[in-house]
Amino acid sequence: MSAKAGKLIGVGVGPGDPELVTLKAMRAFGEADVIAFFAKAGNESHSRAIAARHLRAGVSELPLLYPVTTELPKCSDGYRETIRDFYDSAAAKIAAHLDTGSTVIVLCEGDPLFYGSYMHLHTRLAPRFSTEVIAGVTGMSGCWSAAGMPMAQGDDVLTVLPATLPEAELARRLADADAAVVMKVGRHLPKLRRALACSGRLERAIYVERGTMADAKMIPLAAKTDDEAAYFAVVLVPGWERRQ
Amino acid sequence: MSAKAGKLIGVGVGPGDPELVTLKAMRAFGEADVIAFFAKAGNESHSRAIAARHLRAGVSELPLLYPVTTELPKCSDGYRETIRDFYDSAAAKIAAHLDTGSTVIVLCEGDPLFYGSYMHLHTRLAPRFSTEVIAGVTGMSGCWSAAGMPMAQGDDVLTVLPATLPEAELARRLADADAAVVMKVGRHLPKLRRALACSGRLERAIYVERGTMADAKMIPLAAKTDDEAAYFAVVLVPGWERRQ
Repeated sequence: MSAKAGKLIGVGVGPGDPELVTLKAMRAFGEADVIAFFAKAGNESHSRAIAARHLRAGVSELPLLYPVTTELPKCSDGYRETIRDFYDSAAAKIAAHLDTGSTVIVLCEGDPLFYGSYMHLHTRLAPRFSTEVIAGVTGMSGCWSAAGMPMAQGDDVLTVLPATLPEAELARRLADADAAVVMKVGRHLPKLRRALACSGRLERAIYVERGTMADAKMIPLAAKTDDEAAYFAVVLVPGWERRQ
Repeated sequence: MSAKAGKLIGVGVGPGDPELVTLKAMRAFGEADVIAFFAKAGNESHSRAIAARHLRAGVSELPLLYPVTTELPKCSDGYRETIRDFYDSAAAKIAAHLDTGSTVIVLCEGDPLFYGSYMHLHTRLAPRFSTEVIAGVTGMSGCWSAAGMPMAQGDDVLTVLPATLPEAELARRLADADAAVVMKVGRHLPKLRRALACSGRLERAIYVERGTMADAKMIPLAAKTDDEAAYFAVVLVPGWERRQ
């Protein structure tokens, strides 16, 4: 590390509402020489959209565009290699700025170290550069707050799990937790619905889409008549009532 | 509800660092007629201490002092009744302000609906009054951010569990999760250490005390030579490395 090496800051920008940004994130926006963010090619970056109103006019921006991998099976060596190369290259671009002494912040939806892409940069750059992580409000906190739904209390066990798991495993894990947050619902909704019914939790499950956006959609899952679900939708199973 | 009834706002003030308060919480501080907070008799309120520098001078404060229950076993009817009476009485005090049209905010460490006392007020008052919940950065996010520790990624299953569980159940749940956050460590540390060893997770576990305070203490649990632990200490088991 050179004497004038810069600093990498992973900044949680919260779940979507630009007001759910922290004062610490605001300070980082003001101190940044370069603002990096992930985005899909051709799409607006979610994290940048959340932070947009808070950024200094004219600050240098570094979009990190995910490669298109739709033609590659997710378990293939080709997919893994493409993704690894992408994060290597993104880290190298950031390192070039850090080497000149710049402060580079990476905008992260939710919390940087909780199911986010920032981790791939952090693990690559933390051995060489000074780093800081600014915690953010997670997407799941945004969702249960918007729903006004007490989630976990006292000695409750809360489990966060992806709807991508096999049906039997989903059912087993749902039955084994007091409270649960199921992520990546999307096309897995019919399977998740069966797993919730099997574990006796369907009645209490709430489907939440765009939790902290102005157009948030919340509905008891049992009352949802179709199986259409957004990829980023979550299903909340509160643990609270057991212990009230 | 009268036409001029007030509004109850549960405000997450984050894990400890006053800069980890959100802009939305700051706005609520400015709009509040009454600021309520929980505290132990004779102790400073943690949530008030976090928010203190942001509060308007002279705003009306409503401390809600937990009853002393050390002489009552936690599973006894007497304990449950004392606690229930306390929350009933706290809700009644807040309702008296809401009835006059005041906006009452309740300061909550971390996130209001995630293992917090605010829920007891929310469930009592939400049927009668307008309510809003402002999500906050959780204590666990504060801890893993301070530790710079990637926690969960992709399809990881993350479990939040209290160290109060029996040893065999702790071991089973730790073995069954990719990542884990163990709360309420305190006097349960020796038992938790055995459960982590039994589930093969001791090597990766990190002990964190006062995660986002200036005097934070973080140490690999395997390197911690004593069994002294604060009640609010957490142990983090990151899931990340499995999938890197």
